[in-house]
Amino acid sequence: MTVSIRTAQSTVLPERRGPVLVLTLNRPDRLNAWTDELEARYFGLLDEAEADPGVRAIVLTGAGRGFCAGADMDDLQQAGAAAELMDGPVPKRERPRWFPLTLRKPLIAAVNGAAAGLGLVEALYCDIRLSTPDAKFTTAFARRGLIAEYGIAWLLPRLIGQSRAMDLLLSGRVVRGTEAYEMGLVNKVVEADQLLDAAVEYATELAAWSSPASMSIMKRQVLQALDTDFVTAADAADALMPEAFRRPDATEGVASYLEGRAPAFRPLDPK
Amino acid sequence: MTVSIRTAQSTVLPERRGPVLVLTLNRPDRLNAWTDELEARYFGLLDEAEADPGVRAIVLTGAGRGFCAGADMDDLQQAGAAAELMDGPVPKRERPRWFPLTLRKPLIAAVNGAAAGLGLVEALYCDIRLSTPDAKFTTAFARRGLIAEYGIAWLLPRLIGQSRAMDLLLSGRVVRGTEAYEMGLVNKVVEADQLLDAAVEYATELAAWSSPASMSIMKRQVLQALDTDFVTAADAADALMPEAFRRPDATEGVASYLEGRAPAFRPLDPK
Amino acid sequence: MTVSIRTAQSTVLPERRGPVLVLTLNRPDRLNAWTDELEARYFGLLDEAEADPGVRAIVLTGAGRGFCAGADMDDLQQAGAAAELMDGPVPKRERPRWFPLTLRKPLIAAVNGAAAGLGLVEALYCDIRLSTPDAKFTTAFARRGLIAEYGIAWLLPRLIGQSRAMDLLLSGRVVRGTEAYEMGLVNKVVEADQLLDAAVEYATELAAWSSPASMSIMKRQVLQALDTDFVTAADAADALMPEAFRRPDATEGVASYLEGRAPAFRPLDPK
Repeated sequence: MTVSIRTAQSTVLPERRGPVLVLTLNRPDRLNAWTDELEARYFGLLDEAEADPGVRAIVLTGAGRGFCAGADMDDLQQAGAAAELMDGPVPKRERPRWFPLTLRKPLIAAVNGAAAGLGLVEALYCDIRLSTPDAKFTTAFARRGLIAEYGIAWLLPRLIGQSRAMDLLLSGRVVRGTEAYEMGLVNKVVEADQLLDAAVEYATELAAWSSPASMSIMKRQVLQALDTDFVTAADAADALMPEAFRRPDATEGVASYLEGRAPAFRPLDPK
Repeated sequence: MTVSIRTAQSTVLPERRGPVLVLTLNRPDRLNAWTDELEARYFGLLDEAEADPGVRAIVLTGAGRGFCAGADMDDLQQAGAAAELMDGPVPKRERPRWFPLTLRKPLIAAVNGAAAGLGLVEALYCDIRLSTPDAKFTTAFARRGLIAEYGIAWLLPRLIGQSRAMDLLLSGRVVRGTEAYEMGLVNKVVEADQLLDAAVEYATELAAWSSPASMSIMKRQVLQALDTDFVTAADAADALMPEAFRRPDATEGVASYLEGRAPAFRPLDPK
Repeated sequence: MTVSIRTAQSTVLPERRGPVLVLTLNRPDRLNAWTDELEARYFGLLDEAEADPGVRAIVLTGAGRGFCAGADMDDLQQAGAAAELMDGPVPKRERPRWFPLTLRKPLIAAVNGAAAGLGLVEALYCDIRLSTPDAKFTTAFARRGLIAEYGIAWLLPRLIGQSRAMDLLLSGRVVRGTEAYEMGLVNKVVEADQLLDAAVEYATELAAWSSPASMSIMKRQVLQALDTDFVTAADAADALMPEAFRRPDATEGVASYLEGRAPAFRPLDPK
């Protein structure tokens, strides 16, 4: 039993670097292929990160050569789920697979190697992606006889445009980090030996300069605005402004700017 | 009568290259300007391609120097239609002009020369676009006193962003293939003497590696997801997964992958 | 009183260059920071430009080193508004802040220096942006403890994709003109000493070659299409076509094209 818990816990390793929590998918012998166990661990760590006032940003990366090779079809639970799928609807999860999209703190992917299928989807659930020049990105679904899973049909066109999304989805071809950057799939390309440091540095900048409350609200604003018309989004912003001006962060934001110093913003309020 | 049919048939030439159907707009003396006759022939060939289990992808190109110079205003039918337009609503077509967007098989444009006005719209109805470095792209509408026709006001911003779309629509300026690529209007730029081969090669890869059922569903998913919110798109994907797992293509997709061989996917079921 | 009006009028300077109206934000000692007074003057000049048949396009730029540094917090009215915000909802304006988005004539930004916060929003309300290589773009909001104001949460993802928008909003980092161009935030980069001329040249091309009626309708089409589904947008285009064909500009557009001369389009009808 203890061993089992230890095994489950080892699927994702947390490491604090100042205000940044680094989460490392840790099944390197399986290119960090996704299992229900790993997902439960990952979501649990995200919950803790949301609740921990010391964590201001999260970096997601993979151990070993890969980032995440997709759903682990050797995994018994996954296989069971697949078998179930053949008889009925997708099994209800406690939380939707896209739970990371709803995070209030910034989530940054450091894509160190292959991000395939569900592994790519997980990278896309992050707000920002850094990758190595050689990291492999592939939707893979069409080459397995599958479909565009877990909302990637919605996400990809909004990241890289409709036609590039079609290219990646229909072909399932492998795109390297440099091409992914040109497409807008990756925000920054960094050599492998500096990738994690660069991601942590980006996250540390967010922690140092950006208000946690502001970031939390803006993440929600962007996702909501993608699903609404302009006037609704503009009106929503107008409604959010008075409370923003009342928060101490607004006072501190202006004061620190005028005084030419780094701001001391408050940690994110608990929900 | 026979001559007339022969003439009509010659407006678009079909040529099979293995699993790929190449359709060539063939009014080179008119830069392949669009006529109702040509459209009927094109749509008819697309129907046949959809029904033919041997065709897995379609390439659209133009004969001679141009891809398609737009609506042929010298064409009697077009002129008649324009005259009608001055008196009433757009004449009802048997199928909407955007019928190619609804195709279940992938449609790849090999833009060999000018794609102007309706000719550009037709290129945008394709899933993916390759072009020569010098191919000319222009909306043209503003320079003719017209409007953004046939849904291009919706398509362009989703392909290249709102501001680049405004640039192309307001100015009607000519953009060459290389700039079109930088904008995301074109997926790949290829020298003129290799363009068609490159498009056929891309299509052949789709035929060899991607499940026809997967591609058909994903095309629909992307277009639907562009018109819905994220949760709707994610729920739709969840609903599509069980049937995907039940299809033989899913079994073959995983098996071929594990066995390191090309998959043998089934042709697309008739509708 | 006279002085006060003169002061108000000097906040934005109009200058006609042929069919192009250049509007220069003119508070250079404050990096052209936005005030209610400046906005009233700007909107008033836009109203005049819409009504003036001689004006076919508008260029917006800034005097001195900056484009617009954002809301001027030293401004008494702004400070009053901020204080009000702390007690209640955003004060109702006569016209919404996004009034420039609704302009019927093309609006081109020549971003000569820093565009920060509300200053960036104003640049994004323009249809097209040119900038110098070193112009600074920053959302700034997160670094002041604020939110994504005035619809920028809706605009940015549609201009540069969801993830680049998240990067700029969450980090509030400064992006230079060259990077802004790569992101699609800027349509063209021009050296500082040629920037305004290039923007006026672009606007003059619109004035010379594009139908004012066409541009007006297409601007509305693009904004509406961003908020509707494809079929609605395509149907709307079909509904607009007959009236377009009936307008003299359509006749002139085709005739001038066939005759190889510049078109003589009509000025925009008053609303």
